[in-house]
Amino acid sequence: MTSFTQTLGAAWQRTGSLLCVGLDPEPTKFPAALAGRGDAIFEFCRDIVDATAPYACSFKPQIAYFAARRAEDQLEALIAHVHEKHPGLPVILDAKRGDIGSTAEQYAREAFERFKADAVTVNPYMGFDSIEPWLAHKGKGVIVLCRTSNPGGSDLQFLETGGRPLYQVVADLAANKWNASRELGLVVGATFPKEIETVRAIVGDMPLLIPGIGAQGGDVEATVKAGRTANGTGMLINSSRAIIYASKGEDYAQAAATAAKETRDRINTFR
Amino acid sequence: MTSFTQTLGAAWQRTGSLLCVGLDPEPTKFPAALAGRGDAIFEFCRDIVDATAPYACSFKPQIAYFAARRAEDQLEALIAHVHEKHPGLPVILDAKRGDIGSTAEQYAREAFERFKADAVTVNPYMGFDSIEPWLAHKGKGVIVLCRTSNPGGSDLQFLETGGRPLYQVVADLAANKWNASRELGLVVGATFPKEIETVRAIVGDMPLLIPGIGAQGGDVEATVKAGRTANGTGMLINSSRAIIYASKGEDYAQAAATAAKETRDRINTFR
Repeated sequence: MTSFTQTLGAAWQRTGSLLCVGLDPEPTKFPAALAGRGDAIFEFCRDIVDATAPYACSFKPQIAYFAARRAEDQLEALIAHVHEKHPGLPVILDAKRGDIGSTAEQYAREAFERFKADAVTVNPYMGFDSIEPWLAHKGKGVIVLCRTSNPGGSDLQFLETGGRPLYQVVADLAANKWNASRELGLVVGATFPKEIETVRAIVGDMPLLIPGIGAQGGDVEATVKAGRTANGTGMLINSSRAIIYASKGEDYAQAAATAAKETRDRINTFR
Repeated sequence: MTSFTQTLGAAWQRTGSLLCVGLDPEPTKFPAALAGRGDAIFEFCRDIVDATAPYACSFKPQIAYFAARRAEDQLEALIAHVHEKHPGLPVILDAKRGDIGSTAEQYAREAFERFKADAVTVNPYMGFDSIEPWLAHKGKGVIVLCRTSNPGGSDLQFLETGGRPLYQVVADLAANKWNASRELGLVVGATFPKEIETVRAIVGDMPLLIPGIGAQGGDVEATVKAGRTANGTGMLINSSRAIIYASKGEDYAQAAATAAKETRDRINTFR
């Protein structure tokens, strides 16, 4: 059986990279040569994937960008392409699903059987019965929202409960109550390095998916020092727009490769 | 401009019903005559819609059941059918989305432009910037998860913060900070009638989407008395499985109509 956390651990070692390339395809930002092509989303993302794979430990397609344009078939083709051409680099489907019982089972079927993702992001607001159905898919990863990098993240996540903010309760639940499968991870935004450090202290070696560097302005040095594990891994540091839209011209793939390499190297300076 | 809350208010008055029929299509539960048909999901749901429309104030398709089976096209066709054949009955897309910025904009495009839903369910864990992008679609409804009817709902929603449980903070934020558009609603489970009463006291006349009667066992009398507004409306009381699977035989549509009528009447006994 393939295990997400084991595959990820092996990818960190083999690639020497903590960079997760986020795939948020917006056709209005594509180069002119792709305009009007029915499979432009697939083609753009495939080129980005092939160009950045040497510098990445994983890819994270955001499902909304595909669903808004009836492009689920292109998302299926894209994930199949990653598995075929870049085996060992796990694909995290960023879907932030959150539901229970038979509905959660349907979402898990969507993510793992239809799209064949290796892991998925989920929302903890409905509690453990919204996490559990995903775990029935043995070896698949479940990455729970904990502390998000947006300003409004604090509306709920920073509320004090039992002497600590809610996101710390979520980290504690994920690490100490919900993780019998050892396939959980957490989303913690790079805009709050001190909070990454706090979460790391709560969750041990659990993988952290960290958005918010690049376009969102998180500090790479502070992020890496706060989130690394004893062996200098433990993080999927995500960058989307700063890499995939590094150039809006015909050199988009090469520009993405350069941006990915620079980001990987900047991260590695501080490991 | 069509307004979700105005359409809903008119539907309550015209239909005399507070029943929302939930559409969670599982092909394994369909009657034999539909087996193997490529459009079985659409056909089943269309038959349920046409049979139950006289007794309902709205419909709530759950997107996961369609997405798990590559049946987004059937969901589009189903919602178009409701709009064409049953105008004035709003369609709530149960998707429980939760994301921010440009990603939330893509999800809103999916729900409102692609699927043409009148309202959508969303998750509040990421705060106001996960609600705001939906509100840019004027007149569309946004129904925020508040207190869910599952056992694990208490894991986060019942945590005390500032002297009250988290779900009350969400109700307060939704009613008093996030609702400039007057198009917000809240999800509050029927399994907690006292909490429905508390939420109603916080939110005034805001529409409440209430799952959990029927298969989940919520008490109809206690629910209605706790959640009704001064004019005896204010609630979308959802029933899914108890109606759509009232019979697994060829009489499924008639059985659904009977179950919907009985549920509407039972609700109306206590208004």
